[in-house]
Amino acid sequence: MIKVSFGAFLLPAKSEEELSRDWDAIVIGGGPGGLTAAIYLARYGLRALVIEKDSPGGKVSINPIVENYPGFPSISGEQLSKIFHEHAIKAGAKILFPEEVVKLELRGDWKKVFTKSGKEFSARALIIATGTEDRRLGVPGEIEFYGKGVSYCAVCDGPLFKGKRIVVVGGGDTAAISTLYLAKLASEVILVHRRDRMRAERALVDRVLSLPNVSFKWDSVLTEIIGDSKVEAVKIKNLVTEEEEFVEIDGVFIFIGVEPQSSLAKQAGVKVDEKGFIIVDYWQRTNCFAVYAVGDVTGEPMQIAKAVGDGVKAATDIHDRIFGGAYGEPKASWHPAPCLSENNE
Amino acid sequence: MIKVSFGAFLLPAKSEEELSRDWDAIVIGGGPGGLTAAIYLARYGLRALVIEKDSPGGKVSINPIVENYPGFPSISGEQLSKIFHEHAIKAGAKILFPEEVVKLELRGDWKKVFTKSGKEFSARALIIATGTEDRRLGVPGEIEFYGKGVSYCAVCDGPLFKGKRIVVVGGGDTAAISTLYLAKLASEVILVHRRDRMRAERALVDRVLSLPNVSFKWDSVLTEIIGDSKVEAVKIKNLVTEEEEFVEIDGVFIFIGVEPQSSLAKQAGVKVDEKGFIIVDYWQRTNCFAVYAVGDVTGEPMQIAKAVGDGVKAATDIHDRIFGGAYGEPKASWHPAPCLSENNE
Repeated sequence: MIKVSFGAFLLPAKSEEELSRDWDAIVIGGGPGGLTAAIYLARYGLRALVIEKDSPGGKVSINPIVENYPGFPSISGEQLSKIFHEHAIKAGAKILFPEEVVKLELRGDWKKVFTKSGKEFSARALIIATGTEDRRLGVPGEIEFYGKGVSYCAVCDGPLFKGKRIVVVGGGDTAAISTLYLAKLASEVILVHRRDRMRAERALVDRVLSLPNVSFKWDSVLTEIIGDSKVEAVKIKNLVTEEEEFVEIDGVFIFIGVEPQSSLAKQAGVKVDEKGFIIVDYWQRTNCFAVYAVGDVTGEPMQIAKAVGDGVKAATDIHDRIFGGAYGEPKASWHPAPCLSENNE
Repeated sequence: MIKVSFGAFLLPAKSEEELSRDWDAIVIGGGPGGLTAAIYLARYGLRALVIEKDSPGGKVSINPIVENYPGFPSISGEQLSKIFHEHAIKAGAKILFPEEVVKLELRGDWKKVFTKSGKEFSARALIIATGTEDRRLGVPGEIEFYGKGVSYCAVCDGPLFKGKRIVVVGGGDTAAISTLYLAKLASEVILVHRRDRMRAERALVDRVLSLPNVSFKWDSVLTEIIGDSKVEAVKIKNLVTEEEEFVEIDGVFIFIGVEPQSSLAKQAGVKVDEKGFIIVDYWQRTNCFAVYAVGDVTGEPMQIAKAVGDGVKAATDIHDRIFGGAYGEPKASWHPAPCLSENNE
């Protein structure tokens, strides 16, 4: 077999058909962390494929406004995602979307990735950048009325509630940013939060508190979402007085935190913490050889600027450690053992 | 004394004069890491002062071209620094420059910062973002001819060598980027590197190798810089053949790595590693309570995107841990002991 040298690392030459399946590195998830890793991998001369289940930018793309990614004092999440995407393409990365990954095999030298549409890819190194998904409240009516007045995305569904009355549940950055956006559309916003104040950035909280059409139900939780074919009312319970209130409303927006999307990785043997966040070291290495994780799926702080930092570290370590850098001297493996799933151990 | 509450943390009220001296947080160094921390601190509602000895942007500002900070496919370092600076100002941070810090006192609840011009500032939390400085070759003529043909900055001094013959020493990213820039100005560039290939990003190396007016002396080192009132020649030694060559030349650009600027911090009790990089944990905390370090002064990877990630972590931890977050519940201290310098221990 002909050998193609990259640094000191030898890869078997592939036919055209095979080349489209095998990569130097695959990144699962096209948010800021994944796309940054792709930019760096490509600039290091590595063949990098990003597989994104939705559209590049990840969660950022549905953010109405981003003001804390350095270099962009104020930009829509959609626009910033587009710029990241174009940057990765320009650097030479390939981005496949929408394509959902349904299974990983991480044991061998070639990490295998299987998709919903039946495709199979493999790579010498893998970066998991799958982010998080919104947490559910778990109250009656929530699932029943999803898409019928219940939403987890202000930008996606806000315009449907123009001139209407809505409830926002939550007190973090996403709840604050979304309220700023929704208050421009809705006639009235009631913010329900289980604490006595918001924990979002002060710069955001001050603006939310100053909005004339936003009122607040502190120390309160939503206990039920009520309606016929769509949301018509909610029950709000004050945790201090224990009193429950019935409020007529047209929509419910829920921003109460996130769940890390780590189940595929976990099934393949990647270690996660008690909340499901993937455990990584300084260079974003997981317990599995040549498998990395970056961005929100690795935990706090869940910020764009933190995710891009993660992406640089993972890509740099792949270049230096897995491919031997430009000098062709691979660093010592940190996990000489293959990755074993729970079923195989 | 009147007490002003911020979260659960009580700060004594200050007169107008005192307010200009005392801050919630001080950031030493206005590069990408320091400015990102300032953006976040200000957005968290904290009073943040950045002290920069030169001009905002730090080392980035003298970079001819930046292509790997996500969101900016290609931009000059000067322009990117200006954008970061404006972002921090817009977020509400204050930036003092040029003002050189000459001494730190980190033992008490108020971290003290003394400057060359005789000013004294203090803050509840401190972030060290002092970056690195260029390493010297240590060969005869290097110091003697600094500014007379010897340079460590392509953008600063490149235009002085229009149409002339120059030597570039080094093989990393900075050497590669600088060579791309200098080759457009100089008639001829000789790149001297002690290894048999460059270790810069592949994307850069490929472009350097394709330049028609650049030649390479691999496995070689500069042993002497020779001239009368300015650089006239260099001696280049091949490490394999041990032969030394005399080459007439007009300028020498040196890009052989960096030294962390950690001596002030070290004198004040901050722990550094054997190379002088400040030792930090996940949240960028040093061994000293309420003292953080971000960016290149903490080591590899020395990239803009990594520094901004550091800045987010430090600012977020200051908000949550030192000032008790928006909820007013400070996290447990990680270092209840004050910071002791070597002289005091």
